[in-house]
Amino acid sequence: MKKDFDIVRVELGPDSYDIVIGSGALDSLTGFVSGKKYSRSALIITDTNVGPLYADRVKALLAAAGITAAVATIPAGEASKSLMVAEEVYTTAIEAGLDRHSPVIALGGGVVGDLSGFIAATYMRGVPFIQIPTSLLADVDSSVGGKVAVNHRLGKNLIGAFYQPDAVFIDLDCLKTLPAREISTGLGEIVKYGIISDAAMFDYLEENAEAVKALDTEAVRHLIIRSCEIKADVVSRDEKEGGLRRILNFGHTMAHAVEKEAGYGCYNHGEAVAIGMVCAAHISAALKLADEALLGRIEKLCRQLDLPTRVENCTVDKMYEDIFHDKKTVNGVVSWVLTPCPGETAIKNDVPEAIVRAAMTYCCA
Amino acid sequence: MKKDFDIVRVELGPDSYDIVIGSGALDSLTGFVSGKKYSRSALIITDTNVGPLYADRVKALLAAAGITAAVATIPAGEASKSLMVAEEVYTTAIEAGLDRHSPVIALGGGVVGDLSGFIAATYMRGVPFIQIPTSLLADVDSSVGGKVAVNHRLGKNLIGAFYQPDAVFIDLDCLKTLPAREISTGLGEIVKYGIISDAAMFDYLEENAEAVKALDTEAVRHLIIRSCEIKADVVSRDEKEGGLRRILNFGHTMAHAVEKEAGYGCYNHGEAVAIGMVCAAHISAALKLADEALLGRIEKLCRQLDLPTRVENCTVDKMYEDIFHDKKTVNGVVSWVLTPCPGETAIKNDVPEAIVRAAMTYCCA
Repeated sequence: MKKDFDIVRVELGPDSYDIVIGSGALDSLTGFVSGKKYSRSALIITDTNVGPLYADRVKALLAAAGITAAVATIPAGEASKSLMVAEEVYTTAIEAGLDRHSPVIALGGGVVGDLSGFIAATYMRGVPFIQIPTSLLADVDSSVGGKVAVNHRLGKNLIGAFYQPDAVFIDLDCLKTLPAREISTGLGEIVKYGIISDAAMFDYLEENAEAVKALDTEAVRHLIIRSCEIKADVVSRDEKEGGLRRILNFGHTMAHAVEKEAGYGCYNHGEAVAIGMVCAAHISAALKLADEALLGRIEKLCRQLDLPTRVENCTVDKMYEDIFHDKKTVNGVVSWVLTPCPGETAIKNDVPEAIVRAAMTYCCA
Repeated sequence: MKKDFDIVRVELGPDSYDIVIGSGALDSLTGFVSGKKYSRSALIITDTNVGPLYADRVKALLAAAGITAAVATIPAGEASKSLMVAEEVYTTAIEAGLDRHSPVIALGGGVVGDLSGFIAATYMRGVPFIQIPTSLLADVDSSVGGKVAVNHRLGKNLIGAFYQPDAVFIDLDCLKTLPAREISTGLGEIVKYGIISDAAMFDYLEENAEAVKALDTEAVRHLIIRSCEIKADVVSRDEKEGGLRRILNFGHTMAHAVEKEAGYGCYNHGEAVAIGMVCAAHISAALKLADEALLGRIEKLCRQLDLPTRVENCTVDKMYEDIFHDKKTVNGVVSWVLTPCPGETAIKNDVPEAIVRAAMTYCCA
């Protein structure tokens, strides 16, 4: 049975690859790996939530192409994005006899994707990598663009690489097993794409918030494709974050501080981004870049999508300090990604401290 | 005072860089970093042997360009090439406030270079990297070509990346502080370059063995430049070891087994390569690729340079098993780099087990 899936191409010269999107997209894995010169051994990296649901199926799809896959199952949760867990996965890879042409397959959400990508980038100085994201957030964010990383105890994603996959398979059927809060966190990033690059998508979200939350098939398909297209376009023009790619950081400057100060896991990533987008919109208004109404629209949309717009239990002093330790901060200069209106961005390196603090205060419950 | 140094250019498109070679070459560091858009913070990574000799000088050369450098000093020795030590160095980098434009400077031998390169490749997904090799082996081997790595307890260099430096400074004055055995290990790799690519250099080594061992300035300068040129040429044509680069592995298939079975540190790298070259020459003769006389010449030259030609305390069975776990082994096929005569190589993927075992037996004391 031949199925037609949507394809988003990420153009990166010799490192270009396809994102295959659709219900049942996973089934095209067998044909894909059959067409590659991979070794006969592979490693599936998954976690304790996702593994029981899909690992056997992925193993069977690889076996149908003559590839024997070992499975490394890491504990679900951000704590697994560590060098310590990576070391255990390397051991599994070595003991399973993986060589430099053996693919590493990420099967899970952002944590699994980021850790697996780091393993693929560094095992024997780099082996083939395939992403099978299973959460909405991973579909639209971590699975596109080649940023892979593990955390250091002093900060998130401080150890990593730019490493592109050979392909990404987004099977929309996987979303059916996601808890509601996991849907919301993905929507946080999707709202961001609307703000930075697509006013029509922002309008669509406002008009279809209920259908989106209920995972209406057409709505979700549309939003995932548009989000991947936007990110693919940005990444293809600036793979290693020299300039343009910074716009993807909209809402993230404060989000990183929120995640850290509230304690990792208290707010998930999309939730922290929602709060950070409110902060960035507040700064945009204070600088007269945008009118006040935009702030109201962003807040309202976030609430409709069950995303928080205020942070609890964080102090402005601590968060203000944190932004100077962000990876994007160079020589002590914080680059704020702001917005004049949905679909447009403006980057400011000289936002006055008082304006940043006022925006952060606004975002504190 | 303007000095003229020799420059070997490593051509890798946008990642091209210069190797600056000469007595006092280190002094050109200040001018080099002044011309780059680096951040004002840097990290020097060195070890307990080299740091006390040169770290203050490198720090001062950076300070003269307005860059403040923190120093991470790791214990000398192969055991420091681990994820555990890397994690400590990341901590130093974060605490020193290094951002994504801060250079990491490797000051030391191969262990320092490989570990530092891995840190530079992965800290904040990659920061600028400068190599200051201080051993003869690092000068001609690990400082050229961009292979960086740490070890896993199940094997050497299993975790790493291809990551090119912005520049390499080979200060010939640093060799004066090297112990004799460290000179020999470098000569092991230099002999290899003669065999795989430059018959005249092989002749030169035979004719000037005593001057070379005594570190005659002209002889050493000539050998380092030629070795860097050969490696730079091979690497520029095959950065990621798709094919040609494999010839650099001459002598290394058995060398890796020797290092492992004798216990890491028992034979140093160049010594193990010397034994491995004898093994490869024996196989070449057994396959009638080369005549017996070549084996004799290689053995004689190694002995003249105080390099071992036989391994003690290793069994053929164990070493034979090890070669199937080498990083270069794909789908169970071992690629042997062989030689018909100095200056030429031949790669064979189907060397019969009996011929390999006979060569290994020959190399056992």
